[in-house]
Amino acid sequence: MPLTIDQLDTPCVLVDIDRAEANLARAQDYADAHRLRLRPHIKTHKLPRFAKRQVALGAIGITCQKLGEAEVMADAGLDDIFLPYNIIGPEKLHRLRRLNERLTLAVTADNAPTIEGYAATFAEAEKPLRVLVECDTGMGRCGVQSPEEAVALAALIAGSRGLAFGGIMTYPPAGSPGPARELLGAIIAALADAGLPPAIVSTGGTPDLWSAHETAAATEYRPGTYIYLDRYQVAKGVGTLDDCALTVLTTVVSRPTDDRAIVDAGSKALTSDLLGLSGYGLVLGYPDAVVTGLSEEHGTIDFSASARKPEIGERLRILPNHACPVSNLFDRVHLVSGDHVVATETVAARGRVD
Amino acid sequence: MPLTIDQLDTPCVLVDIDRAEANLARAQDYADAHRLRLRPHIKTHKLPRFAKRQVALGAIGITCQKLGEAEVMADAGLDDIFLPYNIIGPEKLHRLRRLNERLTLAVTADNAPTIEGYAATFAEAEKPLRVLVECDTGMGRCGVQSPEEAVALAALIAGSRGLAFGGIMTYPPAGSPGPARELLGAIIAALADAGLPPAIVSTGGTPDLWSAHETAAATEYRPGTYIYLDRYQVAKGVGTLDDCALTVLTTVVSRPTDDRAIVDAGSKALTSDLLGLSGYGLVLGYPDAVVTGLSEEHGTIDFSASARKPEIGERLRILPNHACPVSNLFDRVHLVSGDHVVATETVAARGRVD
Repeated sequence: MPLTIDQLDTPCVLVDIDRAEANLARAQDYADAHRLRLRPHIKTHKLPRFAKRQVALGAIGITCQKLGEAEVMADAGLDDIFLPYNIIGPEKLHRLRRLNERLTLAVTADNAPTIEGYAATFAEAEKPLRVLVECDTGMGRCGVQSPEEAVALAALIAGSRGLAFGGIMTYPPAGSPGPARELLGAIIAALADAGLPPAIVSTGGTPDLWSAHETAAATEYRPGTYIYLDRYQVAKGVGTLDDCALTVLTTVVSRPTDDRAIVDAGSKALTSDLLGLSGYGLVLGYPDAVVTGLSEEHGTIDFSASARKPEIGERLRILPNHACPVSNLFDRVHLVSGDHVVATETVAARGRVD
Repeated sequence: MPLTIDQLDTPCVLVDIDRAEANLARAQDYADAHRLRLRPHIKTHKLPRFAKRQVALGAIGITCQKLGEAEVMADAGLDDIFLPYNIIGPEKLHRLRRLNERLTLAVTADNAPTIEGYAATFAEAEKPLRVLVECDTGMGRCGVQSPEEAVALAALIAGSRGLAFGGIMTYPPAGSPGPARELLGAIIAALADAGLPPAIVSTGGTPDLWSAHETAAATEYRPGTYIYLDRYQVAKGVGTLDDCALTVLTTVVSRPTDDRAIVDAGSKALTSDLLGLSGYGLVLGYPDAVVTGLSEEHGTIDFSASARKPEIGERLRILPNHACPVSNLFDRVHLVSGDHVVATETVAARGRVD
């Protein structure tokens, strides 16, 4: 175990444990102050250690995006998991049934065939499967488009042996005045009118974390990136650069021209995610440097606007645009406090694609 | 072991073994016809099985981009590896020395500090390290910029105890008339004048594969993607859609609107690589569909221009824009012949970031 960052080989992921802890505590304090129940999304860290820590700090459970992630977290002892996904196909439904026997679980559906698959799988189960209806409040991804659809699916769930209607789930949270908030309100009202008031109204997203309390109907909130933050979240004003916990440590391997540096972190370390930003990350200590391009194993950085330019062998820390997919690219991450390496964790839920 | 594709859970990677074999044979036949020596880049498949197959078909060895990849391939029995990278830092240099003892190895350098690191590591080694000088012939990444630099580095290598000057390496191949070809010619001439004629002139890249013979000075060629091809290579005219061997099998999990389908393959399966293309992949059988967006675990597809639209539960095969990073996201890939699953291979060199 290396004792300091200087002894780590590059490229590697550093997670500043003090910053991560501060980010977790700040969000939990906010949630507590507003009587919001947090159910953090583990997609960002994919580490049982942090999932347990989130629960220890007051989270009511966790959110996983894939069945495979939920299985890893269940194996690690997490016992209350929300899986906001349409689980389809015999193999996955079999795994879902086994998972439901082990812990407090809920899934989502936004269509009848998915619910029919759940019903066929759980009709004879001792313990019913809790199903929430996913609503599209502006993401343009999954989700029912109208109160009528939401009521029809809720009724289908409630009327299916082996299933229990758990409520509704949406993203983004639709707290601001506008069509999304109107739709969410109309769905909740229609469900109440139909005798199916949603016990859970689950919303989420780190960009809207600090205004989560404005979605008055929400009972649970699922932030993910808040533990690490990233360049995109800073651009969104969710935190500052000094709050960002995850960086990629990289080495300058080439200085072909006065202005160009090549580092040993490419898209296999930083991902190609731009999220509307300019450049593929921020080089800490070199605010004017631009990560202009990534090959798989090379990052190209333009230092033409920087007064000081790095030498070959210098190590740079790059703040990625998007922290979550970076966690998925590394088998291990190093937890650091200042320059000290506190622990090296296996990213247990990495690569769980199904 | 599932016997047919229908029994595989999604998302997963399918590699059409017949197409891959045809792609390998076509390239080897071309190389043989032009007396070009192939040294395929394993970054695309990351599988010992295919590396061995490439050598069995006539490749003189393989290319790896990272030391960790080379270690995996050496463990699998590959015994002639080119590592075109500046290897920097005590930990990596230690690993490099051990690797050089095991097989026929060569690395690159484009700067003096890297060569000094090699020299310090190999001064007392029984077997010298072969070092090629990397030249920038238009990629704008690593590589010396002038014949003078190339000669200076070649002389530094040749004059260092424990090192042997192996030649030069470049990408792209600079076969067409223009400044890149002029630079490459000038570098070779300058080295010859200095009494350091390059034994190896290594070029590469699948986009230029079929014109590789036009770079008359080249002695070795390093194609990578040619084994699988992908949407980008088809756009470049390297092959046709019917030549593409790697696809991502995915399931339609949601149909929120008439035109929108959501599949269970997102950026964690397809990557965010656009490579200048429109959309994040091509949906086979639906030529007018557009993969408009990817979240980590969801792909959003617009079927508004498609007469036929898929139903929930339908499985789609998506040709990714860029095959290589897809291989890096999956622990396993399925080799298929028609609808039959021939083998499931662990992607042994996946995630070898250092």
